[in-house]
Amino acid sequence: MKDGQAFDIASLHAAYRSGWSVAQTIETVFGRIAAVDDPGIFLHLADRSELLDEAAALGAFDPVAKPLWGIPFAVKDNIDVAGMPTTAACPDFAYPAQRDATVVRLLRAAGALVIGKTNLDQFATGLVGVRTPYPVPRNALDPDLVPGGSSSGSAVATAHGIVSFALGTDTAGSGRIPAGLNNIVGLKPSIGALSTTGVVPACRTLDCVSIFALAVADAYRVFEIAARPDVSDPYSRVIAPRGALSLPPVLKVGVPATADRRFFGDALMESAYDAALQMLRSLGHQIVELPFADFYATATLLYEGAWVAERYAAVKDFFNANEPSFHPVTRKIYGGAKALSAADAFEGFYALQALKRKVAPLIASVDMICVPTAPTHFTRMEVEAEPIRENARLGTYTNFVNLLDMCGMAVPTGLRSDGRPASVTLLAPAGKDPLTASLAAELHRLSALPLGATGWPQPANYLPADADEGQMIELVVVGAHLSGMPLNDQLRDLGARFSRRALTAKRYRLYALSGTEPAKPGLVRCQESEGASIEVEVWKLGAEAFGLFVAAVPSPLAIGTVQLADGTACKGFLVEPAGLAGAADISRYGGWRAYIASLAA
Amino acid sequence: MKDGQAFDIASLHAAYRSGWSVAQTIETVFGRIAAVDDPGIFLHLADRSELLDEAAALGAFDPVAKPLWGIPFAVKDNIDVAGMPTTAACPDFAYPAQRDATVVRLLRAAGALVIGKTNLDQFATGLVGVRTPYPVPRNALDPDLVPGGSSSGSAVATAHGIVSFALGTDTAGSGRIPAGLNNIVGLKPSIGALSTTGVVPACRTLDCVSIFALAVADAYRVFEIAARPDVSDPYSRVIAPRGALSLPPVLKVGVPATADRRFFGDALMESAYDAALQMLRSLGHQIVELPFADFYATATLLYEGAWVAERYAAVKDFFNANEPSFHPVTRKIYGGAKALSAADAFEGFYALQALKRKVAPLIASVDMICVPTAPTHFTRMEVEAEPIRENARLGTYTNFVNLLDMCGMAVPTGLRSDGRPASVTLLAPAGKDPLTASLAAELHRLSALPLGATGWPQPANYLPADADEGQMIELVVVGAHLSGMPLNDQLRDLGARFSRRALTAKRYRLYALSGTEPAKPGLVRCQESEGASIEVEVWKLGAEAFGLFVAAVPSPLAIGTVQLADGTACKGFLVEPAGLAGAADISRYGGWRAYIASLAA
Repeated sequence: MKDGQAFDIASLHAAYRSGWSVAQTIETVFGRIAAVDDPGIFLHLADRSELLDEAAALGAFDPVAKPLWGIPFAVKDNIDVAGMPTTAACPDFAYPAQRDATVVRLLRAAGALVIGKTNLDQFATGLVGVRTPYPVPRNALDPDLVPGGSSSGSAVATAHGIVSFALGTDTAGSGRIPAGLNNIVGLKPSIGALSTTGVVPACRTLDCVSIFALAVADAYRVFEIAARPDVSDPYSRVIAPRGALSLPPVLKVGVPATADRRFFGDALMESAYDAALQMLRSLGHQIVELPFADFYATATLLYEGAWVAERYAAVKDFFNANEPSFHPVTRKIYGGAKALSAADAFEGFYALQALKRKVAPLIASVDMICVPTAPTHFTRMEVEAEPIRENARLGTYTNFVNLLDMCGMAVPTGLRSDGRPASVTLLAPAGKDPLTASLAAELHRLSALPLGATGWPQPANYLPADADEGQMIELVVVGAHLSGMPLNDQLRDLGARFSRRALTAKRYRLYALSGTEPAKPGLVRCQESEGASIEVEVWKLGAEAFGLFVAAVPSPLAIGTVQLADGTACKGFLVEPAGLAGAADISRYGGWRAYIASLAA
Repeated sequence: MKDGQAFDIASLHAAYRSGWSVAQTIETVFGRIAAVDDPGIFLHLADRSELLDEAAALGAFDPVAKPLWGIPFAVKDNIDVAGMPTTAACPDFAYPAQRDATVVRLLRAAGALVIGKTNLDQFATGLVGVRTPYPVPRNALDPDLVPGGSSSGSAVATAHGIVSFALGTDTAGSGRIPAGLNNIVGLKPSIGALSTTGVVPACRTLDCVSIFALAVADAYRVFEIAARPDVSDPYSRVIAPRGALSLPPVLKVGVPATADRRFFGDALMESAYDAALQMLRSLGHQIVELPFADFYATATLLYEGAWVAERYAAVKDFFNANEPSFHPVTRKIYGGAKALSAADAFEGFYALQALKRKVAPLIASVDMICVPTAPTHFTRMEVEAEPIRENARLGTYTNFVNLLDMCGMAVPTGLRSDGRPASVTLLAPAGKDPLTASLAAELHRLSALPLGATGWPQPANYLPADADEGQMIELVVVGAHLSGMPLNDQLRDLGARFSRRALTAKRYRLYALSGTEPAKPGLVRCQESEGASIEVEVWKLGAEAFGLFVAAVPSPLAIGTVQLADGTACKGFLVEPAGLAGAADISRYGGWRAYIASLAA
């Protein structure tokens, strides 16, 4: 693979710019499928000639109109793709999908090409990847290891570079564990961010469509395109993928307290996790130990409480009529759920609600939580011996996440001395998907790992692209609020983000106000002939933060319109003329920073 | 009762100011209990001498430190009061309460006195008020009618003026139906606004503590005091009782479409409802017909779906061990719930989630919804003949409310020609409790009804007191944003509320700016010797609305600090001196409104 065309989105789009064709991509995809020679990955492949037709219909390369132009992807086989069967890895359950799941439709509309449907733990119940009547996909890095599940085929296809990205689903960790076990990225969106219309449900109240990719920026790009409210999905929510992509310089990152760590004796995984925390520290972030007992207690609710009944409810009639069609382990789990009463279900909700309230202050005390993606690796033989116990152990750090309405991003952080992959998952409350993606990108870059099992280097543009910031208000600051100046923290405390340095139009005068503490300048617009161009900074704030900020601006300062040298205008600091008594005109310094420096000199 | 001391809070506090004593209040309470002579109201009464001790401990009359100083209230007997038994109207279930429910504790801390515990439909399951092994409370207006439930005793005690207010609970309508049937006010808070710690659960995910009072202002006062987040209640939410108490002049009020009305043949109730809508129109509001099928479909989920199992879950062990201790109707309902499976429960949640999404745009299309509180009246004999069907009919307009996470306020609107009371309930999304209270107060005043069954007139101060507005930002407007001026709608669209007219300090000049459309003035601060005092208006906005407003202010206007004649200062409109080219000094008019009038003259 090493010498083939890299399939991360940036590399593939660069290739298209240089004359590489979609037909070549499709040829490469099928070549890699043959070369990898793993019959467990795909349960159905797209017809090659139909794919070529679809490619031709894309027209000329246009990554603006179609941001996923010519990008091949795979779809977990519990997500509908029109014209392909959906099996959920249960052959007797299979049906021909009449239409694309909403998410598939959005990605195709953006120019992406469905290569095929991928294997999974049957009905997405499992984290091991071996609960399938089809051949088990091989872990892309080490065939002795389980591939992880339930989105096994999607993760392995991505890790081999057969596709640029793949869709999974994630209820208990199915979008994170296989990422962690195959050295790729797994974006588990906030519940409801991506529509589940056209997805075979596992737990409808918790299910997420997830994204595997070779690099964080790619997963995030797909997320931005797929995260759209969908009226046909009652659990769809407006989770706008925007904001927070420029990270605050110091993040508080919560981690399980040392006494609460669970690695099941895997010392290599524990030291790999310690190394990842060291990487976070080296990025300037602060590690905060959190008691983790209540997170673990929440995790057990998923398989030991009411939510198993939700899996059963999703396929109740089919299960009752076709028990023998089920994988033996899955059948055992679903059969147990049948006996649960509605009262049991409510007792589960009460237990969850109480735990939610207990962990809420812990979650609120940090910007993010960083956990090992999986606590350890298991070989296929180990899982065969203990199919339920080892599966449950894999979910140590994943099972609580959707129950607590958090989003997560699994990211590779290193290779252990035994060659097995190490990964952490960054977790944050729903809606913070951009934040976890941003830090994951930094970690991945720092790891300098090659992508998946391909040997390809990471793309140069590792940061997720900054998304739509339509709701942010730009504010021109002139004096004490500039970076490093005494009042800059007022902006940071309100979550303001630095946008850029700028110059005002050449029609302002700058004054050093008399008797202000800390010292402040005042900007006054004048006739163009008398004006100077003043150095300023532009910061961005949310509307509420902006409102609070303006409300606190003291007299004689005011927030009006400041014209910039580039012809644009922003809200910004002005001064009332009545506040200029005793003020010194310092326009000749060109800005407050230079004036302050002159005082020190 | 007519000639006794009125017990609405304003009247009673006025009496305390004039020398009336708490001992007299207590004497009056017990005198009224004897006079009403209804053994169905109270299941337990406070000890008279202990009450007198408690009264003495209040100290001197101080309605600022203790806003409910000396106010007697009753507590539904599914809410704990320390030292009294809690029965939930099931004698075998009774236990001595060790401590006050959180809500009782808060009200006592505010100076209120618990008179006793009141009868209810057993385990708060019912809307009729007759499902009790104790004597059935008599409807306060017409003893042939059911009192309504489940908070029967609390409503009847309030209607007779035995207490100033009473606590109920409300899951299906138990805080609204008995209010509607007894000519009093019933405030059903947003779920989680009032703690349910110390309350015997019915449906824990839906239960609310509710407030009965003679007048809206009283119910709202109690709500303000009792609505506090409680860490001991996992369903507690921060629902701050503030804002929105000055109503917008025109509200869109949604009502069931004519074809969707359900009155079960009760023409008097239908015409009473029409009269109430006419009252809303006379207040200037706009009636909007809404299709109501999905609201009714939601309502049926409460007793025909998963949520019955929640009632069973709440007392599962007790029910299984003591079935014969249950009221026959209650027993039948709970017994049916036992058979529901966890899968049934999840199917109920899916059905609710789908209905929530269907009604969301209807709810969002109006400011509030106005429904009849009950669709008709039933006599005790009618309910005896059809105990479940007539109960369900009473819930026509109440059962969907908590499932849709709305708050509600039942308010009397008239007496029908047969002397039976008429009432509507105003509904709005959770958190809008102040809005429903405000409109309910207007309706109640317009009805000019006497209070409950007491014959007492409504208190003069009928409006709920304006609550804490700490989060609102005051904005001084000077010109085109004044009431009635062309840009005033920008403020209203952002939810801004008029606060007051004011004058600036005598140190401003007002200019009519040149070339602005619509015409705008500019305010400039100057030396005091040269200044005028300018007429302005103060509006209040939330921080986000304020932020959005400031962001849209065009050059040369700016938002700075405006000093007012009363010595205070607010954010407000100023103008950049560079914007004064060609402007006329109009300070001599004293304000923009006078200047505009002079142009017309």
